[in-house]
Amino acid sequence: MSNTPLIFWLVPVASLIALGFAWHFFRSMMKESEGTPRMKEIAAHVRKGAMAYLRQQYRVVAIVFLILVLFFAFLAYGLGVQNPWVPFAFLTGGLFSGLAGFIGMRTATFASARTAHAASQSLNKGLKVAFRSGAVMGLVVVGLGLLDISVWYLILNHFIDATGTQKLMIITTTMLTFGMGASTQALFARVGGGIYTKAADVGADLVGKVEAGIPEDDPRNPATIADNVGDNVGDVAGMGADLYESYCGSILATAALGAAAFASSGMQMQAVLAPMLIAAVGILLSVIGIFLVRTKEGATMKQLLGALGIGVNVSSVLIAICTFGILYVLQIDNWLGISFSVIVGLLAGIIIGQSTEYYTSHSYKPTQKIAKSSETGPATVIISGIGMGMISTAIPVITIAVAIILAFLCAINFDVQHMISAENISKGLYGIGIAAVGMLSTLGITLATDAYGPIADNAGGNAEMSGLDPDVRKRTDALDALGNTTAATGKGFAIGSAALTALALLASYIEEVKIGMQHIGETTLQLADGTTKAIADANILDMMDYFQVTLMNPNVLVGAFIGAMMAFLFCGLTMNAVGRAAQSMVEEVRRQFREIKGILEGKATPDYARCVAISTKGAQREMLFPSIIAIVVPILVGFIFGVAGVMGLLIGSLSAGFVLAVFMANSGGAWDNAKKFIEEGNFGGKGSDNHKATVVGDTVGDPFKDTSGPSLNILIKLMSMVSIVVAGLTVSMHLL
Amino acid sequence: MSNTPLIFWLVPVASLIALGFAWHFFRSMMKESEGTPRMKEIAAHVRKGAMAYLRQQYRVVAIVFLILVLFFAFLAYGLGVQNPWVPFAFLTGGLFSGLAGFIGMRTATFASARTAHAASQSLNKGLKVAFRSGAVMGLVVVGLGLLDISVWYLILNHFIDATGTQKLMIITTTMLTFGMGASTQALFARVGGGIYTKAADVGADLVGKVEAGIPEDDPRNPATIADNVGDNVGDVAGMGADLYESYCGSILATAALGAAAFASSGMQMQAVLAPMLIAAVGILLSVIGIFLVRTKEGATMKQLLGALGIGVNVSSVLIAICTFGILYVLQIDNWLGISFSVIVGLLAGIIIGQSTEYYTSHSYKPTQKIAKSSETGPATVIISGIGMGMISTAIPVITIAVAIILAFLCAINFDVQHMISAENISKGLYGIGIAAVGMLSTLGITLATDAYGPIADNAGGNAEMSGLDPDVRKRTDALDALGNTTAATGKGFAIGSAALTALALLASYIEEVKIGMQHIGETTLQLADGTTKAIADANILDMMDYFQVTLMNPNVLVGAFIGAMMAFLFCGLTMNAVGRAAQSMVEEVRRQFREIKGILEGKATPDYARCVAISTKGAQREMLFPSIIAIVVPILVGFIFGVAGVMGLLIGSLSAGFVLAVFMANSGGAWDNAKKFIEEGNFGGKGSDNHKATVVGDTVGDPFKDTSGPSLNILIKLMSMVSIVVAGLTVSMHLL
Repeated sequence: MSNTPLIFWLVPVASLIALGFAWHFFRSMMKESEGTPRMKEIAAHVRKGAMAYLRQQYRVVAIVFLILVLFFAFLAYGLGVQNPWVPFAFLTGGLFSGLAGFIGMRTATFASARTAHAASQSLNKGLKVAFRSGAVMGLVVVGLGLLDISVWYLILNHFIDATGTQKLMIITTTMLTFGMGASTQALFARVGGGIYTKAADVGADLVGKVEAGIPEDDPRNPATIADNVGDNVGDVAGMGADLYESYCGSILATAALGAAAFASSGMQMQAVLAPMLIAAVGILLSVIGIFLVRTKEGATMKQLLGALGIGVNVSSVLIAICTFGILYVLQIDNWLGISFSVIVGLLAGIIIGQSTEYYTSHSYKPTQKIAKSSETGPATVIISGIGMGMISTAIPVITIAVAIILAFLCAINFDVQHMISAENISKGLYGIGIAAVGMLSTLGITLATDAYGPIADNAGGNAEMSGLDPDVRKRTDALDALGNTTAATGKGFAIGSAALTALALLASYIEEVKIGMQHIGETTLQLADGTTKAIADANILDMMDYFQVTLMNPNVLVGAFIGAMMAFLFCGLTMNAVGRAAQSMVEEVRRQFREIKGILEGKATPDYARCVAISTKGAQREMLFPSIIAIVVPILVGFIFGVAGVMGLLIGSLSAGFVLAVFMANSGGAWDNAKKFIEEGNFGGKGSDNHKATVVGDTVGDPFKDTSGPSLNILIKLMSMVSIVVAGLTVSMHLL
Repeated sequence: MSNTPLIFWLVPVASLIALGFAWHFFRSMMKESEGTPRMKEIAAHVRKGAMAYLRQQYRVVAIVFLILVLFFAFLAYGLGVQNPWVPFAFLTGGLFSGLAGFIGMRTATFASARTAHAASQSLNKGLKVAFRSGAVMGLVVVGLGLLDISVWYLILNHFIDATGTQKLMIITTTMLTFGMGASTQALFARVGGGIYTKAADVGADLVGKVEAGIPEDDPRNPATIADNVGDNVGDVAGMGADLYESYCGSILATAALGAAAFASSGMQMQAVLAPMLIAAVGILLSVIGIFLVRTKEGATMKQLLGALGIGVNVSSVLIAICTFGILYVLQIDNWLGISFSVIVGLLAGIIIGQSTEYYTSHSYKPTQKIAKSSETGPATVIISGIGMGMISTAIPVITIAVAIILAFLCAINFDVQHMISAENISKGLYGIGIAAVGMLSTLGITLATDAYGPIADNAGGNAEMSGLDPDVRKRTDALDALGNTTAATGKGFAIGSAALTALALLASYIEEVKIGMQHIGETTLQLADGTTKAIADANILDMMDYFQVTLMNPNVLVGAFIGAMMAFLFCGLTMNAVGRAAQSMVEEVRRQFREIKGILEGKATPDYARCVAISTKGAQREMLFPSIIAIVVPILVGFIFGVAGVMGLLIGSLSAGFVLAVFMANSGGAWDNAKKFIEEGNFGGKGSDNHKATVVGDTVGDPFKDTSGPSLNILIKLMSMVSIVVAGLTVSMHLL
């Protein structure tokens, strides 16, 4: 390990600090009281349901992992087209991602009753308990992410038998494959959790609210526990696994790009370290930000938002400043330009978050217009919600487009004349990668504000079901409303970071193809002009030339069509899955209302467990097919259409999938808040026909914003990851 | 004109034959009786409304054309970056496209009462009048298309001062720009007509059917005339202009590709003639097919479909056979392989049509499942309809993907080893273009089956409003139901042909860039390997190399993101436009019900004209913004990101737009038929809660399938056309 620079050790140290604070926040949350026996009982129900679900999900995922590990082992040891470390890297990625989701969710299920109880003392206390419990998730995700990266770096550095740039490239591209483990785990968490939570939610709402006319979270509703479980398994565990994957993916992809881009200037080690160090410093600053979040009694929504905002903003400003310091200390070529690439990423994340808030909050016109369209019934609510959601894709796309170009240009010192030269293109793509790292550098705290949402939501449910004082419920409602806003911006942030990460992965796919070709014993490339070049010396443009990845290659065109279709197909499958699973839930709730006497009078206890079981079973059954095609299609496309086809596939799924994801998340969020706007007394208020029309919108929006939309984030990353892992296979055999 | 081969004259002759038969069908339709005075009166109302609308629309379009012609004149005569013929070619394209829509629509408005009257005699008579009136439209579109092509070919051949391949290339690329005129006209027709028809339809349904509980087409509904006008301006004029554009675009793009691809073998003239001759023979065979359509009294739906099917199928089989003959006679290189490319296109069109029928007809499971989901209310109808629509994109995309690859491979004689060589890539792309020509070769008759739909629909409306015998209404209903099915398959066909045409346009964009570079005085290309090449000798791969159109160029990536976003933004804008326009209609109908006493008892006549005026005004106001961004964005992207950015934009909008268009058309069609399925007595039948839930689905589906979805066909073609026309500007000035 003599060749590991001293400064590298900051990375494992930061990861341990994150895990230490996570432990500290967890312990101090656990010391709070869980409140009355009834509160404890309800929390225990939810916890039990959530754990039962996760256990079941991990069982299914374990089988999928077993099959994939065997497949990768066959590629590595049987066909010899893959690095022998890959099956192990893949496994640990899955393991750590699952662990992060598990810890986050377990914390959340412990925190809800405690938040409700703390809120009965003061708003600030409630906010603190909920937010710091959310911070456990944020810190565990970044802590485990950097830990996995550090350990693998040290292991591979010790064992891999190569030197210099070649060694660094093998290390970084091998590490990248653990991203696929994380990605696969995340896919199941998001899809399974998303189906679970919305089947329960839609089922509970359709029968409970619409048919029986009882309020949200009413203990008489048999699906209410399942609904609360859903918040934990979908929004906490799913979101955690998703961002764990973006976090690691962006750092590793950037490192892999850096190893190649800075080889000629001898700065490859600095370029590999830079994303890791930015992430490490980001962790420390996130912890500082977390400590800054506090509020006072009777705070308005704006003040509550401000309380969270201070934490996030301070962390963001500090990381922006520190980035210059880190890159200066590393003495990397063009450190100033690259620092600005990082800032570009940070800013893009903030703008996308703001635009999400504008389009989905009922403080602004778009959502108010959807509420107004309820005057002509549910059909116009749907039409205007879909129209608005589609229009709302413009700002995020333009933001990402500008960020891509600016991050690229900053990293090449605005050498516009030679933008696509062999030297500049690698460095520019590195700039795009490090912009993704910048966007995610404050993940410790941004994820805390996100995971906080479902905790506050569950606290409200707990307060309602255990019949706490209306004043307490009012406080938990305030905390919950705050959570809805942070959830919307969090979703924008998750999508934006997924897009930049996927781009970085797309670029590092080329590096992986290069390594794959060398691995199967190829040494030279035959270029279009008839000359040959050693693969080891080939740059990205040579690779594009060799594989003819131009837009006029029909393989690229076909790949792009299939990629765009994949985004829609995947969404359609998950939408229908929610529909079917919700249908079973509706039938079960109707059956209980019919068969269990006295249930609606509150004289008999509903069979909560059975609803939990139905959601669990539905989610497990339904998540398998969409997940499998997400893994199989990139392999098939590679096998038929080769590298050019795969790149077409990835760009098609990335561009269409990003836009589709933003559309679905924003339409869903806006419908939710249009309904809330009416509930606050506008356009006829609660119970009016207008309200009923927006309830239809909200119900349609549920799978939009919590199942299909967020699952797309993973789809676009997972397809890149799968392509990266099977790159060796693709280059050694394909039909066209 | 001595260098014009004799066989070329078949093209203008076929076009005149088409126009002759169109005139014949029109005259014989006009000889039929329009029925009772009441029938005449209603038909006159609709005709007047439709003409008023078209007049208004052409006025707006004229202003846009004036501005664009001035802009192109400035490019051609001011900056000198464009061919001096372009402004004129642009103008005739717009003129002929508008003329085709106008004639088709005028015929349709004359035919509806006559169809209703003929149906009172026999079903076969009704079918014959409606179908042959539809055939007027089909034949006018193909006839005017080939006429425009013939005349321009002869003019340019006479005036252009060059020789050999160079001359043919200038001729074909110049002609291509008249496609932009057609495209611009089509965009306004589709978007304006689409907004008009759905504002009227949604408005009529929401107040008439849902609030007042009166049936469809009831004369007491003030919006009912506007609704019938809408069928004509949206479905007839819009569809006609759309397919006119695909038809000319595919022929011209293929000709332009052929001039370049076959230059080295000296076969460029044959390659330019081939698509024109296939189209010419297709016209003659379409006329034969039209004469074969007849049915007998009391025919079932299946028999009616069979009656139309015979006409279409005979034409298709004959054109497949004749293609081999045409290409053999031309003695073009690899005539057998290219013939198979044509067959691939024909087959792809049929498969996409079949898959559309499967996903949207209530004879099959998908639509029945949507109907069943009404048991849990409107929200689940929407969720399952969206889910199903997204899933239904898989077959058309896979079909197009396979068609692209097969058409390419057939045209290069399955030389898979050298698939992307300089020689093969041009020929392969020519194969893709000629597949589009094959798909559209029977347009004369397929468009007839399409334009037939709204005529039958209006005939039903006329029968209802003039209080004809219920037996007659039953016959017109049978004709209308048939029209719904042909409309769905027609939409699939329109989208599929738009995708292939856009691909051919994308490929010919490169040729246009080459011509543009020579036009501004550039003579050599500096390639990546440091060598230079004369532009005149450059092949497609050299151009890709020079402009660095690889997937790792950030300009391409950014272009792809913006392209995908454009499809969604455009849809969102048109969805919202329908929502707003329908809103004004709802308010007007409510006002009339309130203020005009005795209207609901049938004692007072509603103010139909005012509803017509509101739809007209709404459509005009709303169509401008989405149309303008469709024209401006490609120019802007070219100006900022250059040729690579434009190609990224086109591939992004094409892939995402195609999938989005299929999704919207299929979801909309399925909702419509799910409602009809319930109206036939399933799941509770008419008037049940389930029925109401599917009415919500149908209303949401209206703008999906008749406004936003079909407008996307034009968007993807128009953006390519705009890029082609401003290619000279793009190469001479751009920022990055």
